[in-house]
Amino acid sequence: MLGKLADWNDTIVALATPQGIGAIGVVRVSGKSAIEIVDRLFPAKDLCACKSHTLHVGLLEADGVAIDQVVVSLFKGPASYTGENVVEISSHGSPYILEKIITDITAAGARLAKPGEFTQRAFLNGKLDLTQAEAVADLIYSNTEISRKHALQNIRGGFSSVLKTLRDQLLSFSALIELELDFSQEDVEFADRSQLNSIINNAEKMTDELLSSFALGNVIKNGVQVAIIGKPNAGKSTLLNTLLNENRAIVSEIAGTTRDTIEEVLNIDGILFRLIDTAGIRQHTTDLIESIGVERSLEKMSQADVVIYLFDVNEINKEELQVVIHEMNEKAIHYLLVGNKIDLSSDKVLAEKFANINVLYISAGNKKNVDIVKQRLVDEVLGGKLQTESSVVSNARHYEALRLVHQSLIDIQKGMEINISGDLLSLDIRRCLHYLGEITGEITNEDQLDYIFSKFCIGK
Amino acid sequence: MLGKLADWNDTIVALATPQGIGAIGVVRVSGKSAIEIVDRLFPAKDLCACKSHTLHVGLLEADGVAIDQVVVSLFKGPASYTGENVVEISSHGSPYILEKIITDITAAGARLAKPGEFTQRAFLNGKLDLTQAEAVADLIYSNTEISRKHALQNIRGGFSSVLKTLRDQLLSFSALIELELDFSQEDVEFADRSQLNSIINNAEKMTDELLSSFALGNVIKNGVQVAIIGKPNAGKSTLLNTLLNENRAIVSEIAGTTRDTIEEVLNIDGILFRLIDTAGIRQHTTDLIESIGVERSLEKMSQADVVIYLFDVNEINKEELQVVIHEMNEKAIHYLLVGNKIDLSSDKVLAEKFANINVLYISAGNKKNVDIVKQRLVDEVLGGKLQTESSVVSNARHYEALRLVHQSLIDIQKGMEINISGDLLSLDIRRCLHYLGEITGEITNEDQLDYIFSKFCIGK
Repeated sequence: MLGKLADWNDTIVALATPQGIGAIGVVRVSGKSAIEIVDRLFPAKDLCACKSHTLHVGLLEADGVAIDQVVVSLFKGPASYTGENVVEISSHGSPYILEKIITDITAAGARLAKPGEFTQRAFLNGKLDLTQAEAVADLIYSNTEISRKHALQNIRGGFSSVLKTLRDQLLSFSALIELELDFSQEDVEFADRSQLNSIINNAEKMTDELLSSFALGNVIKNGVQVAIIGKPNAGKSTLLNTLLNENRAIVSEIAGTTRDTIEEVLNIDGILFRLIDTAGIRQHTTDLIESIGVERSLEKMSQADVVIYLFDVNEINKEELQVVIHEMNEKAIHYLLVGNKIDLSSDKVLAEKFANINVLYISAGNKKNVDIVKQRLVDEVLGGKLQTESSVVSNARHYEALRLVHQSLIDIQKGMEINISGDLLSLDIRRCLHYLGEITGEITNEDQLDYIFSKFCIGK
Repeated sequence: MLGKLADWNDTIVALATPQGIGAIGVVRVSGKSAIEIVDRLFPAKDLCACKSHTLHVGLLEADGVAIDQVVVSLFKGPASYTGENVVEISSHGSPYILEKIITDITAAGARLAKPGEFTQRAFLNGKLDLTQAEAVADLIYSNTEISRKHALQNIRGGFSSVLKTLRDQLLSFSALIELELDFSQEDVEFADRSQLNSIINNAEKMTDELLSSFALGNVIKNGVQVAIIGKPNAGKSTLLNTLLNENRAIVSEIAGTTRDTIEEVLNIDGILFRLIDTAGIRQHTTDLIESIGVERSLEKMSQADVVIYLFDVNEINKEELQVVIHEMNEKAIHYLLVGNKIDLSSDKVLAEKFANINVLYISAGNKKNVDIVKQRLVDEVLGGKLQTESSVVSNARHYEALRLVHQSLIDIQKGMEINISGDLLSLDIRRCLHYLGEITGEITNEDQLDYIFSKFCIGK
């Protein structure tokens, strides 16, 4: 497979740190000639003669003109990220200087790296399997504690080991079947059917669990879309601000997050809640239809994973609320009913007024019970599923392949029920192993790889 | 002085790479305990036992929870940027992860660094003098070839060496004067007055040249403010777009530059030309007064270093143009007259029509002679001054101190003219050396240092 990649022998270069001005920036170079190329621009030392995993300070020069004082990190293959020779140049963080360094390094014989090409090389050189490589991108884009843990676990081979277990089960099944085939003339039975059944049922159950974890995986990776709706003056802005203010500290510590994002993202217990089209919702807060305050916004809400219907407990009666509930149920909307401004009423009055309706009572203005709303948001979406330590599928490509694995397993089960021949079962098993191999990258094609790595950022 | 800094013993930590998502991010830790602190989070190796200038790959952990797979760069003081122990942690470039690393390192005993504090420590530890430290910030913010070269030259001690020459001259003058003072009773003359005069005149001339280089220094550092004005339909937008399109490629290669900036910045021969309030000017292009098209925009133009007055050669006559010239001259505006749409006329007609007026003839639409406009912009502003290899003052603080140096030198000259006593001359010399010392940081106070370094970015 490696031979197919025409540009495999190239030395590649890219900016590895974010765009923009910082104290330092890092340019990464990888390939057979990485050390030689950088050495040409670094007269202070003979980098080719230096040991791996060492740091070198000096002036980077091109055509006799000093570019910058830099620190060079030297990693000799295979003991590097990509498995090739890797040099990282840490310079002063001026975008102009970093651009110049990259230009001069390409002039010295490297070419610009494609997105994800460093990690692609790490995969092709066997430093990572495909699920680990994909987890690198997930880790870079992780923005909560849970998504970070999940991605790091996968980089460290967490998901791969689950797939390995699945594969081992299938291989042992396959071995038994093929053994029977070899001795089919002799009427020997190496494994009773119940043992075979149990292996295949196990694998099917495991795959099924992984498939059903995908919804949760999506939440981990992409967050939960939330809409807060309600009549004007229900207190939506106040609730929004109370939720955001308490959590902004956590998010805004990550100073890179833009202000726009901060204002629309809540991090609750490590889960990201995204307030969809907040600007739009905020506008809705004033021009929402007067009657019940739902109909017009229902369309908007259809993209939300969960809808908070906020109402002023003093301004709505049970019948009105039941209309809302009816409409939400009809549209299969996942909702929370939150009654606001309870400071103007009493527990007893409310319990009577909205008897038998599951309402969270809060006072957004006084920040009363807002924590309960946050807790309920987490519970509603996850239903305690994060407690388990089982692996979670968060990647659509893995999901698709696992679906095909699962289908093959069901085909095998059906085949065994009707006693089809061992060689036919064997074909199904091979199909199943093929799809499994696609996930970890044992079975791939160039186009697929290019597609996967093109979603990476440049420099990784 | 060091003793005064209460927080001098702290170990400091900050993000060194730009905010935002990248392939990697770097967290920098500096101080006595830098290695011990990071070592606590890095179980893979005993960092304290590792050699300086080495790289270490492993898992960063806090409280038994894995944070990320990282590369640790180890620099043992004094062989480091700050002169202290420095550890740089290169992690996956998720802002969330970088924030977590910084939080965990502060929990392990470091504190967040103030802006410029790493460089301030480098200065306090004698790794850089003050002009070199300031040049670090200039280098980070450099965005053209000339500003990069200028800042790098100063980091490497270019400006410091000029100041050293100046200082040596003053010290030799001072030595001669003080020698005379010591032997004043004996009527010995160690230096004739003409030699003293020549030394002081030299120093004065040198300081004067440095002072007059400040305008150029400002251009190098901050760019040139340009306004394009003219009547509606003179072709201002076309000229602007032609200028921008040809140059955008250069600027946009630095992908970190925001689009807003790209559209208003021209890089010509390494000099940055900033189109002031382009949006405003563009608006002017349509509602500019009909008659001559200057008066109303004169106010706006007052902030420009150079004004391009663009006119349609077919729509304006010599008398009108002379009114424009008169007004520009009266307001002491630095201008270029550019006649557009020459493709609709002939050279001969134009030479006759605008005889004896210095006009650049172009066709913005056909991109004819636009290069000449660019060349003239550079020439007008710099007047060939960039050819010289002499040092250039680009820092307002240096300029202020040099002004005081210069004033002291003039006082000495005057004193010598009226034959004031040697001890009075000596006082002036000491004053002069004091101001010079302020530039390189030999004479400073804490407030001044704090002010200088507060303008740095965090992490440097």
